[in-house]
Amino acid sequence: MKSHTQYLTMNVPSSMGFVNITTQVSDCVRASGVQEGLCLVNSMHITSSVFINDNESGLHHDFGVWLEELAPFNPDPNVYHHNRTGEDNADAHLKRTIMGREVVVAITKGKLDFGPWEAIFYGEFDGRRNKRVLVKIIGE
Amino acid sequence: MKSHTQYLTMNVPSSMGFVNITTQVSDCVRASGVQEGLCLVNSMHITSSVFINDNESGLHHDFGVWLEELAPFNPDPNVYHHNRTGEDNADAHLKRTIMGREVVVAITKGKLDFGPWEAIFYGEFDGRRNKRVLVKIIGE
Amino acid sequence: MKSHTQYLTMNVPSSMGFVNITTQVSDCVRASGVQEGLCLVNSMHITSSVFINDNESGLHHDFGVWLEELAPFNPDPNVYHHNRTGEDNADAHLKRTIMGREVVVAITKGKLDFGPWEAIFYGEFDGRRNKRVLVKIIGE
Repeated sequence: MKSHTQYLTMNVPSSMGFVNITTQVSDCVRASGVQEGLCLVNSMHITSSVFINDNESGLHHDFGVWLEELAPFNPDPNVYHHNRTGEDNADAHLKRTIMGREVVVAITKGKLDFGPWEAIFYGEFDGRRNKRVLVKIIGE
Repeated sequence: MKSHTQYLTMNVPSSMGFVNITTQVSDCVRASGVQEGLCLVNSMHITSSVFINDNESGLHHDFGVWLEELAPFNPDPNVYHHNRTGEDNADAHLKRTIMGREVVVAITKGKLDFGPWEAIFYGEFDGRRNKRVLVKIIGE
Repeated sequence: MKSHTQYLTMNVPSSMGFVNITTQVSDCVRASGVQEGLCLVNSMHITSSVFINDNESGLHHDFGVWLEELAPFNPDPNVYHHNRTGEDNADAHLKRTIMGREVVVAITKGKLDFGPWEAIFYGEFDGRRNKRVLVKIIGE
């Protein structure tokens, strides 16, 4: 069994944003030499996500509006008790929960085994600082 | 390490629907010959889901009502910018996000290592056409 | 390839609650002897979750309030058809869907490869009875 571990550094210049990391993950798969296996991609932070969806800017706009409706930003510590810690990012923890922490992707014949429109995104909900994404590949 | 890759074709005759694929996935596990390992099952499309929950039609009805509340269908491109592309399925991308893209299931002693009520479902949110589900198994 | 399987028993004395299981999962990783691999942790029940987020009680309070808004408890079988089966826990199936069934964590150099604040939680939405969590580890 082969394994390969790589860390990507993300820095989104706004509070919320989506970054296409498909090419970077594909590069990790190539570097791993794995032909058949699994590729885990996860955010190492708890106010950001890794997810798979469409590479279409209108949809990313819709994600932002929708997440703000489902889990609105509110620094008031009476609304979100998490903000009693001095943080104001409780909503970011909830948004990340909707979008997910991780994806697991099959590797077949040395490549990410994707449907026609699948792309991997990093979703940031408390940005303006360095964060890390982990890519872990196992297989043969 | 062994690996096994199989593609299931789904065709749900309505916009939204849930299909129990547990037997098909169990058949893939048997075909793989893997005794101890992991089984990834994911939708290869970005408007459908693979998830684990109860095989109970009342609950599936409830999922449909609930998803329509959380992410209502609306073809209006002023409501969902994704629909400015000529699509009308922005809501399907959001519904799939709630239900998830994939599941990873343990294989123990040659079988899906499931609790008493676990079953694997394909969740369709933009149906009436062929879509694919990927089953990837690795182990020994 | 090595594999390791372990079952944790959970019993949350209230309907909803969150339990930090990071230490127990770390113990499983140590027991497996795996240095490089993947660790799947999933609820074996369909009204509870395994997820990764912050070990902060204010946030757990916020999760509870938020889940009750998104998927309110209601025993009325006219509201949730699932409750026509004699159950009253339809909301628990929906809450678990938001929080997720499973996490997959990388194992690097014999340890869970975590960011600074990541911790693994069991999320209960229909408690007061024994339930099981599966830990499955594969690697080398």
